[in-house]
Amino acid sequence: MRANPQRSTLSLLFASVVATAAVVHDEARAKDSDHAAIRREVAARHDEAVARLRDWIAKPAIAAENLSMREGAEHMATLARDAGFQKVRIVETGGQPGVFATLDVGAKTTVGLYFMYDVKQYDAAEWSAPPLEGRLVDKPGLGTVMMGRGAVNQKGPQAAMLAALHAIRGSGKRVPVNLVLVAEGEEEIGSPNITKLALDPEVRAALARTIGVFMPSASQTANGAVTVSLGAKGVIELELVASGEAWGRGPARDVHSSLKAMVDSPVWHLVKALDTLVGDDGNTITIDGYPVPPPISATEREMVAKGMHALDEAGFKKQFGIQRWIGDATWQAALERFVSQPTVNIEGLVGGYTGPGGKTVLPHRAVAKLDLRLVPGMSKDAAVAALRSHLQARGYGDIVIDVTGGYDSTSTRLDARLIQAQIATYERGGLVPTIWPRGAGSYPGFVFTGPPLNLAAGHFGLGHGSGAHAPDEYMLITSTNPKIAGYDEAVMSFVDYLYALAKN
Amino acid sequence: MRANPQRSTLSLLFASVVATAAVVHDEARAKDSDHAAIRREVAARHDEAVARLRDWIAKPAIAAENLSMREGAEHMATLARDAGFQKVRIVETGGQPGVFATLDVGAKTTVGLYFMYDVKQYDAAEWSAPPLEGRLVDKPGLGTVMMGRGAVNQKGPQAAMLAALHAIRGSGKRVPVNLVLVAEGEEEIGSPNITKLALDPEVRAALARTIGVFMPSASQTANGAVTVSLGAKGVIELELVASGEAWGRGPARDVHSSLKAMVDSPVWHLVKALDTLVGDDGNTITIDGYPVPPPISATEREMVAKGMHALDEAGFKKQFGIQRWIGDATWQAALERFVSQPTVNIEGLVGGYTGPGGKTVLPHRAVAKLDLRLVPGMSKDAAVAALRSHLQARGYGDIVIDVTGGYDSTSTRLDARLIQAQIATYERGGLVPTIWPRGAGSYPGFVFTGPPLNLAAGHFGLGHGSGAHAPDEYMLITSTNPKIAGYDEAVMSFVDYLYALAKN
Repeated sequence: MRANPQRSTLSLLFASVVATAAVVHDEARAKDSDHAAIRREVAARHDEAVARLRDWIAKPAIAAENLSMREGAEHMATLARDAGFQKVRIVETGGQPGVFATLDVGAKTTVGLYFMYDVKQYDAAEWSAPPLEGRLVDKPGLGTVMMGRGAVNQKGPQAAMLAALHAIRGSGKRVPVNLVLVAEGEEEIGSPNITKLALDPEVRAALARTIGVFMPSASQTANGAVTVSLGAKGVIELELVASGEAWGRGPARDVHSSLKAMVDSPVWHLVKALDTLVGDDGNTITIDGYPVPPPISATEREMVAKGMHALDEAGFKKQFGIQRWIGDATWQAALERFVSQPTVNIEGLVGGYTGPGGKTVLPHRAVAKLDLRLVPGMSKDAAVAALRSHLQARGYGDIVIDVTGGYDSTSTRLDARLIQAQIATYERGGLVPTIWPRGAGSYPGFVFTGPPLNLAAGHFGLGHGSGAHAPDEYMLITSTNPKIAGYDEAVMSFVDYLYALAKN
Repeated sequence: MRANPQRSTLSLLFASVVATAAVVHDEARAKDSDHAAIRREVAARHDEAVARLRDWIAKPAIAAENLSMREGAEHMATLARDAGFQKVRIVETGGQPGVFATLDVGAKTTVGLYFMYDVKQYDAAEWSAPPLEGRLVDKPGLGTVMMGRGAVNQKGPQAAMLAALHAIRGSGKRVPVNLVLVAEGEEEIGSPNITKLALDPEVRAALARTIGVFMPSASQTANGAVTVSLGAKGVIELELVASGEAWGRGPARDVHSSLKAMVDSPVWHLVKALDTLVGDDGNTITIDGYPVPPPISATEREMVAKGMHALDEAGFKKQFGIQRWIGDATWQAALERFVSQPTVNIEGLVGGYTGPGGKTVLPHRAVAKLDLRLVPGMSKDAAVAALRSHLQARGYGDIVIDVTGGYDSTSTRLDARLIQAQIATYERGGLVPTIWPRGAGSYPGFVFTGPPLNLAAGHFGLGHGSGAHAPDEYMLITSTNPKIAGYDEAVMSFVDYLYALAKN
């Protein structure tokens, strides 16, 4: 997933969940002789699967640095071919290439897979083991983990999914569903060309035949708990830049602050513009013509009411140093806001002299970095357009709006086969997942769930890892914690999921 | 002077002045045989004066670094003793020591001198000559300058004043006025103990006998023009700090921005608080109960009307990249604002993520660095008190106001003997000074011009230098530009000024 912080917040939000079930119940699976055979094959191929992951980690493709992208796409294609995909094609997008592959077994059901082959940048100096080595390291309380860039975000879970296909084939079984794989190389830079990739005529036609698309993930918290999330908010990241040059008032460079008596201030201009965007509470959005989302639905309220009991409000507040929710809301009301409300957030503010002490300057430029979260019923384009005309109408048309990235929100119905199969698979494993309307993470699910495809989409997978976008990223390989799946069990969760998807 | 940027802005404001006179007219002085003798003595002692300055530059006292302050005070005391001050005392202030000295010749008139013995910090790597060497360097269009930290701010002009005393004595004459010297060592850190120094019982009693206090300065621009300024605005530097911790809302550390849906934002809190301080134009002060200064006086308007003709509006706008004055004012109206209006300026704004691109955080803290310029009729304490109760009353009482420095404004009447003698001395030298109500520079003149002393105060001196607070600071020693006084002529300007002060 792109936005690790979002992902890790999600994890953190659920880190306090009391694990509702401990172990994957082997009895439940043993009933199925196919599964028993595949399970033996997974165990037999453990070293092969770990080696495949280590090999992938050793070959980073980093879109932000334009590093080894073509090689990354080709390696992704090879991985797909090796896993049994019959048709594999590198898709040119105008940006970094995507990879499209199909595995057709003549099954009744076709399922989409969304992969990313790029990883986040890293600074080797900050790591305790070389970030491309894939070293196996002991982690107290967890077991043996593989450390490396991409280990959990997203090569580890994706390689586990591929290992599931190898194991099914290796045990002489047929993959129970047809698969359509879409892998992009620009996830970590905001998926600027995901629409071109997913709506390439051939890719679109293949995706249209699926019952939905999932991304493999290591979904378990350190307590073993899992959540089935029905979507994610959209997000727009943008900068508002006020400057004397663009305004035609104020100075064109930082000048001495005594001049404030006769020269306008672009910093004040920005503050005044910002002030018009939200109410005095700092929360109510007051952008003229801004898309208004529908109120939280009864279904979503029910999910929150049910899911909130698994969350530790006090622990959560303590973790982030939060004393009160907005409007002194109850935990339930706060969580309802969390899943249903759009936001206008200032992620950064910078202008003039920002060092220690003071410096008497009248700055010529100031920047507010905003992120706007979007919920269903709001489009990125409509939100940006409203912001633009709002500023124009209020006398701030000179303030440059530099949109640096973003997607629309993504939502999937609870009754979608893709989701119901997730729940069934987790429950079959003895886990009671929390069903949550909308996660804090952002990923370009909109391209699947929005028009023209209008598919279901989600994340799935047992297993655990952490450190996406951070040093010492890891994926759990051998679990010593009975609540958390090791790598082989993660692989088996994909086997089970494919079988569950085939069932309905 | 402390605030070099202020000083240099002042210089820049007047850099476009057409020099109204070229050279110091020796004929005018030659009439006075005393002056002719002293002038010869100044020439004879040129090397001694230059060596005295070089020696002083080699011994920096830097209050911000607590570097050699005691040594700096003792050197100042020695310089005073050598120049003929009979009583010299190091005054403990609780901060860095001050130096108090008196030179009593039984004259009718007693004049105060304000010196600073501290200098600004420096980074030797940025200099083209070692900052403590006092190297003589050729500057095209000017002549030979001495380069060194403190060369113009303020050791050069102060040493020229001391050289004047040496020359008067050396030529067998009597200094024409009694002198009271107050030298502080904390000018560059905002003179936090200047009141303790100037109002020490013995110092206060001595100052009370003076007709006013002046600080030696190298007042000529590169065009040779001089300004007689009747005061300076006051300034308050402060930080407004909004934080989740102090507010009891928002997070105690930066958290993921998705939480904005249920957690308040200290950044928005700061923006909303800032918004209440000025009107939509960013200029009109709207702080409840803020001191309201009287409108610009007819006398000051006249000074502006007269002085503005020497200023090049187009050149000034071009220099700072300014297209329009506040409210599309005329040059005259803008300059009237400049000299008469208080300001609330944001010199810096910083919160959350300020690097390139974005980072989806909800920051726990944001800071606005403000400087508030004060004019006569406003006190620093009343302004801060009004700001404090304003924020309290508007629901922003949690925002911490950290006042990091400042002084009240300082004003002196045009008809003060101290000022009239400046004008007479410049005019005797063939220069027509611009009389200006209030400079952009800040210095702690309030301690002399305010109660209980209520004295006249100002800056005086011919000569030229630049680079205060910057690398390659210099003072002109040998002028090749007929419009600008060299060091000996600067020394003579102090001789002439003392004689003029004695006359009335």
